[in-house]
Formats: sequence, structure tokens, C-alpha cells
Amino acid sequence: MTARRPDPPDEAPTLDPRDWEEFRRVAHRALDDAIDFVRTVRERPVWRPVSEAAREGIFEGPPESGAGLEGAYGDLQRLVLPYALDSIHPRFFGWVHGSGLPSGIVAEMMAAAMDLNCGGRDHVGIYVERAVVDWCRRLFRFPEEATGVILTGTSMANLTGLAVARNAKGHGDVRKRGVFEQPKPLVAYASSEVHDSVGKGLEVLGLGRDALRLVPVLDDFSMDVAELRRRIRADRDAGAQPFAVVATAGTVNTGAIDDIQAIEAVCREEGLWMHVDGAFGALIMLSEKLRPRIAGVERADSLAFDFHKWMHVPYDAGMLLVRDGDAHRRAFGVQAAYLRRARRGLAGGGDWPCDFGPELSKGFRALKIWLAWKEAGSDAFARSIEDNCDLAEYLAERLRREPGVAVVNRPRLSVVCFRFTREGWTDEALDALNEDVAADLQESGIAVPSTTRLHGRSVIRANITNHRTRRDDLERFVEAAFAAAERRFAAGATAVQAGS
Amino acid sequence: MTARRPDPPDEAPTLDPRDWEEFRRVAHRALDDAIDFVRTVRERPVWRPVSEAAREGIFEGPPESGAGLEGAYGDLQRLVLPYALDSIHPRFFGWVHGSGLPSGIVAEMMAAAMDLNCGGRDHVGIYVERAVVDWCRRLFRFPEEATGVILTGTSMANLTGLAVARNAKGHGDVRKRGVFEQPKPLVAYASSEVHDSVGKGLEVLGLGRDALRLVPVLDDFSMDVAELRRRIRADRDAGAQPFAVVATAGTVNTGAIDDIQAIEAVCREEGLWMHVDGAFGALIMLSEKLRPRIAGVERADSLAFDFHKWMHVPYDAGMLLVRDGDAHRRAFGVQAAYLRRARRGLAGGGDWPCDFGPELSKGFRALKIWLAWKEAGSDAFARSIEDNCDLAEYLAERLRREPGVAVVNRPRLSVVCFRFTREGWTDEALDALNEDVAADLQESGIAVPSTTRLHGRSVIRANITNHRTRRDDLERFVEAAFAAAERRFAAGATAVQAGS
Repeated sequence: MTARRPDPPDEAPTLDPRDWEEFRRVAHRALDDAIDFVRTVRERPVWRPVSEAAREGIFEGPPESGAGLEGAYGDLQRLVLPYALDSIHPRFFGWVHGSGLPSGIVAEMMAAAMDLNCGGRDHVGIYVERAVVDWCRRLFRFPEEATGVILTGTSMANLTGLAVARNAKGHGDVRKRGVFEQPKPLVAYASSEVHDSVGKGLEVLGLGRDALRLVPVLDDFSMDVAELRRRIRADRDAGAQPFAVVATAGTVNTGAIDDIQAIEAVCREEGLWMHVDGAFGALIMLSEKLRPRIAGVERADSLAFDFHKWMHVPYDAGMLLVRDGDAHRRAFGVQAAYLRRARRGLAGGGDWPCDFGPELSKGFRALKIWLAWKEAGSDAFARSIEDNCDLAEYLAERLRREPGVAVVNRPRLSVVCFRFTREGWTDEALDALNEDVAADLQESGIAVPSTTRLHGRSVIRANITNHRTRRDDLERFVEAAFAAAERRFAAGATAVQAGS
Repeated sequence: MTARRPDPPDEAPTLDPRDWEEFRRVAHRALDDAIDFVRTVRERPVWRPVSEAAREGIFEGPPESGAGLEGAYGDLQRLVLPYALDSIHPRFFGWVHGSGLPSGIVAEMMAAAMDLNCGGRDHVGIYVERAVVDWCRRLFRFPEEATGVILTGTSMANLTGLAVARNAKGHGDVRKRGVFEQPKPLVAYASSEVHDSVGKGLEVLGLGRDALRLVPVLDDFSMDVAELRRRIRADRDAGAQPFAVVATAGTVNTGAIDDIQAIEAVCREEGLWMHVDGAFGALIMLSEKLRPRIAGVERADSLAFDFHKWMHVPYDAGMLLVRDGDAHRRAFGVQAAYLRRARRGLAGGGDWPCDFGPELSKGFRALKIWLAWKEAGSDAFARSIEDNCDLAEYLAERLRREPGVAVVNRPRLSVVCFRFTREGWTDEALDALNEDVAADLQESGIAVPSTTRLHGRSVIRANITNHRTRRDDLERFVEAAFAAAERRFAAGATAVQAGS
């Protein structure tokens, strides 16, 4: 037997596998599991609760000595994979959540192998991020001097955009002196349907939740812009300092789109920063047909949106674009000694992503966006988004034809909110019933809608940001929803009789 | 020929592959490439600049129609993979960067397949995150009521921890009213060697860079705690409102560790929040031998650290632990309508990660930590960390024996800073020379050190957070550094002669 040079040598403290061929075998098995998990998604329930035994198993640890990849992967397979939420399922309609792309599996494995920190330095990860920023800049028709950064999602992109706005519009040097020296408190505006991350962002920024002025919405759940104008004037009169308006392109509750052009006109007149929260809706820009609905987005001062929604890349990936790149740099540019730019070598290369946001540690999120875009192409995303909006129209129509159910919104994107009603039932009883119906559906594993509150009442909410959903999925969902409602109404009636 | 049912049906707008077996073939090829990329890392240069042609190729797009996975992956293989930084290389010593774990490839592919949003809901991703938080809570001996959240890294964890501190220690309801109503400006303390993210965090939080009071360091680059005490008193006398001290466990420049116990005593006396930035050093807690160096960390009010450094999971993954879980919830807990907790179903399940930080969109970062910990075990990480610190000692000793080089720090963790010197050369000329030597090494592809400024002068900085580094890698690095310095000294002498 010939002696084989050990790889790696036994004395080395490396955490690499002792036996690479064994590692390769397990990894290929895992890859097949990953592909099968996506491919067979229709055969599984959309959701099931994590079992007590799985929870206990997950918490067991941390181990002193390792189980090796085979052992650890076995645990993943047994304890984790069966209890994934299946937001990739064609009947997952809960929340605005992409449905995943198989190519994301490939992008993420390659990113893990390279293990780049994309906060800075001069390496390929930085160029891929710049390319994706450039593609988005051109998609949204922002000027050449615009800048952008990939973040975990729109929650972070809203916070970061509002930080740029605060520093640009605030009095004096906010970056250096904070907001203590503002002569008047800074306030921002958004519709009452705005995403919670905007208020949370203002809290983080030291402006406080009260700095968010909620403007009422019209019947279509878009901001009442006349009222916006009145509020700004009233706030100025009362001694506040308006600095920004957040326009929403696709509210999370109903997919409503604010009138961006009208809001932009107000911002120009009043000297305010217009930030667009396009987490959900911005990517309709890819569709020639849908694009007019967000007209004006190309004149935003800053725009935040997600790739893990309508571009379906694996969580997480969002972007902030800023029209005035210098304002962006002034808010976040870094000049610490160990982050200094060298004239050459690995520390060269101009602006780094860490100059445009709060993250310095940052994975290679750009890769999955770049790969997905190359794989599918803009047209395929556009068609998929259009199809989702058509499906929502179809669902709303379908429900409108049924007695005993009220469709609460006219879909502008792909959200349909509805509510089962019945004569003789109080609003409160109907609230409980509709929430129960949604939970029944979730627990049945047939479909996952969510619930929310509209006009002060609970409604069932179905959102279709899902490239796998077909009409027959909607049929099955409607059928199951009516069946669940019937059961609940019957049980309620029985309870009332029993109690009377 | 029998007709095969198309999968998926042709009319479906799905973005799934038309041919799953073709997809599977490309994905398995990519997996082999990923594994080979890691396995053969020693055979490649540590760094090479991204070629002009590759840059152009990367920017080409976005395409209208897709190239399919095979085409898109071909581009990745040709344009991206050859220009990765190779921070996973055994002679990558630039910055504090983990060197990657092959199991991360498996974790990330599985996470991509599941595509969970780990901001909230009741699914397995939430339980895995809670398990990792619990393991860390026990590792750092935090009380049961402590809370934690996985973020992209310590930049975000510092920002989030300081937000909790600001709200807990500030006057009145900071979350609601911002910092406008503070009777005095809030100020925080850290050593002059603190990571830039702390100052940046204070900027984002609306407190301003000036709110960061930099306390001078002692000869070992740790905070002068006596001076900290004096500064706090002086600030109070001058009308400022001290609220927090950031102790650093492993500075990025030299790996210095502040005296956490002494700082904690000051914080108790003065009623301040103690935040520990343990990005680099906190995980020495895994080692019985090294643990005493961060004694007192278990009494921190909040602690931030990274998993992508000394646990080597792929970028990005860090954590914030907060001793007083209620303070954490008060700062970040969410109650928007569409984020309401249902009594049951998918929207049930208690605290969600989005209640503990600014992120709502959030990938399944917990999985790679959980898998790596199970695969390697605590002991293997501890041994690898100890070995890195031993290697740094060895390198410092090795350099001290050489004439013409000054070792500038005594390694407390795994950083060695040194500077080539020569009689007759000015400090400025030596600054330029040492920077050139570092860039020469980077460009040679032999090793990647970085440079930084210490005591106002440029030094070469070698950091070993790398489970692949062996003594012979250090020998090769030292040899190449001396050769590069000799060439630079010779060229400089010639230039001086030519100019005289």
C-alpha cells in the first residue's frame, strides 16, 4: 500500500474536512435534497407547526465536540427542513414574500465558497454590487451621479434613506452634532398605510415615532395629498420642521400606490426630501404595462425596494438608491485609518459599499441578484409580475361574484383583502370569525393567507407575489376558505343557540 | 415516442427551470466548483485585481431575455470566481475576516432552498435563531431574561445595542419623542482605538459623532480607565449627559482588549450602560485558556460580536445580546397591524426577531451558525482560536529577532503590527515605504497584510483569524516582506542618490 500524503496534515488545526471526498458526497446529497425540496413543493402542506420534539432537538447544544458534516446535516434534515414555512409554495399568500428561485441555491453556495466581505476593498464582490446598482439606476432612470447600496431589505433601506434625508435637510452638521441643535423638531410624512419600518427608522434615527405624521388615505388606500399639503403647513405654523415625505409604492396591507407625481410636486414646493418606499411595488418598473402606476418614481430623492419580493431571490436583499450621490457620501462615507483607501492594492478602488450605509460586515448579496437577472432576464420578471397582478384581479372578481363575502380593496398590485359577513353577526364576531378562518386555512396546510385590519376591522388578506401560483391554486384557496367560513358560521350559530 | 407531461406546464408563468434535470446537472457542477475552489485555495495567489475585461463583462446588462442557469452560471464562472479575494486563503492576513467553512456551502444552499424570512412568524427559522441566541446567552453567562438577535455583523449590532442604551438611559420616552427633549446632549465613551462603527452608529442614532468621547489608550492600546473616569466627571460638569461606555474586546488595529472589569466598575458607579464590542475577541470565551482575558464580559449590559470572524461562517452573521430583555423589547418591539401576533397559526409564537432590531426582512442566517457549531463543536473552534493566537505570538517573536523591523504591539489576540525602519530615512519616507511593501505583497499574490496607523505612523498589519494558516505560511510571508522591503529601500536609496 502506498502512503498517501494526508490532506490536510494531521497536526494542522484547520476546520476543513479531514476527508474531502466524504464532504463532497454529503454536500451533493444535500444539493439533491435542496432541489427536491423546491421541485416537490406542491406535494407538501403550505405550513405545519414546528413539532415539540423538533423544537427540543433544535435547542440541544451547543456540542463540545462536533458531529462532522454528516451528523450535523442529518440534524438539519430531520429537525429543520420538514418545518420550513414553505413561502415558496404556490398557495402561500401570507405577507409580501417572494417565492424563491432555484438559481438562488447556486448563487448562495458560490457566495459561501468565496466568503467575501462586500463592505469594501477591491475585489470582485464590489464590482458585482456596482453593476447591480448601475442596472437599477438605469431601470429607475436615476441620473449618473446617483449612488446605491445593497442592504438586507427595505426596512434597512428606509432607515438609511431617511438618515441621508435627515442629514441633508437638517440644520447644520447633523452627522457631527446630532439633532440636538435643530432649532425645531424634524418631522416626516407618510400615509396611514405606511410600513412600520418607516416609523421604526425614525425612532432609530433619534427623531422619535412622533416625528412621523400619518396622513389619512383616500378610498383606494393611497395618501390624501391635499391633506398632506395642509398638514405640512399646519406643522410649520406650529413650529415643527418638515424634512421628508415617504411615498409608498405598494402598501403592505392592500398594495395601494400613492400618487408619486403629486407628492413630488408638494416636495418641490415645500423643499422636502421625497423618499419612495417601493419594497413591494417598485419592480413593476420592469413591466411596460404596469410602469405608469408608479410614474414619478424616477424623480425620487431616494428609493428603497426589495429583490426578495418580486425578483424572488433568496432572503435577504434590498436596495437604496439616492439621487444626489454626494449627499449619500456625506451621510455615510467612512475614513477610519484601517478603512483608508490606498493608492493601489487591495485597499484601493474608490467608493466602497460601506460608504453608503451602516453595514461594514456584508455578505455577497449582489451575486444572487446578478445571477437571477442574467438567468431569467428582465422580461421574464415582468411577465411574472404582470401575471401576479392579473391573478389578483381574477381573485377579486371571483370573490365579488359570491354572496356573503365583501372584497375590501380594488387590487392595484397583487393583494386582495376580503371579509366574510353574515346578517345578525356583530362586527366583533365577524372579526374573530375572519381571523379564525385565516388560521384554519393556515393550519389545514391548504393555503396561507394572512389577516390585517382595514377601516378598523379584521380582513383576510391574500397576496400573490408568487411565480408558482396558478388559477387552480386560487380556486382551491377560495373553496377551502368558504368551507372554513361555513364551519365557523355553523359553530357560531350553534353556540348562540346553546347559549340562548 | 411517448408524450411526456411538461413540467411545469407550458402556459405557467413560473420562473422555475423548464427542465429540472438540466438544472440539477448545472447545480451539481457548480457545487463541485465551489468545493474545489475551497480545497485548492493554497494553489492560488491570495489576491489579484479584477481585470478590465472582467469588469466590463460584469457590468454588461441587465439582459432583456435570460441566459438560463447554464449561461448565467458560465458568466459567474468566467467573470466572478477567478477574481474572488481569497480571504479564505491561509496567507490572507488583511483585516479581521474569517476564512470560511466548507459546511457554509451546504448551510447556504439549504437556506436558499427554504427561502425563509426570519424577521418573524412561527416557522423553523425562528426556532433555530432562538436556539443560537440561547447557546450564546449561556456561553457568555448572561441571565435567562437576556435577549438576543442575529444581525449582519457587529456594525449593526453596535448600532442596535447603542439604540437600546440610548432609549434606556435617555430622559423620557426617547422612542416616541426622539432625543429632542433631552435636557443635555447624550454622550458615550470608547477608547481611541474603537471601531469606526461605534461612531457611525451614534451618527445614525441622531447623537452625532461628537457624542463619542475618545478616551486615550495605554501602551498596550487598551483604554486608560482612570482617564475614562476623569472624562465622565468633566463632561458632567460641562453639562453633558453620559449614558454609555463601549469596551472593546479585540481592537481592529492591534487586537487590544480593554479592561472590561474596570470599565464595568466605572459604569456601575456612574449609572452608565456598558456595551462590549466583541466583534473580534468575544469568541475567545470558547477557550478556557483565553477566556480570562475578557473577564467581566458576562456582566455587560449588551454585547456585540461576529460569527463570520472566529467561527468562520460565511459572511454575514453577527449577534447582539442584551442583558435586560425588557429594555431590548421596549426599544424595538413591533405592533403594526400586519405584524400582530395571532392567538394561533403562522402569526403566533411570542417574540419575533424583528422585535429586537431594525430588520424585518432577514435571511436564515441562524442556519449556518447552527450547522457549523454542530459540525465542528465548541472545542474545535476553541483550539483553532488558540492556535491563531499562538501563531501571532510566534510571528511577533520571529520579527523581533530581525534587525530593521520594529514590532509595534504585543499580541493579545492574533494581530501583529510591524514597521520596517532604516537609519537616515524620515518618518514620512518610512510611512510610504511600509505602505508600498504591503501593497507589493498584495499585488504579488503571496500574502495579504493590511496597513494602519499607530502612534501617528503607518505600520504593516498581519491578522490571523484563519484556521488554515500554518507556521510555514508565516515564514513565507516574512521572507516575502523582507525581500519587498529590501527592494524598496534599494530603490529609495537610488532615488535619493539620483536626486542629490
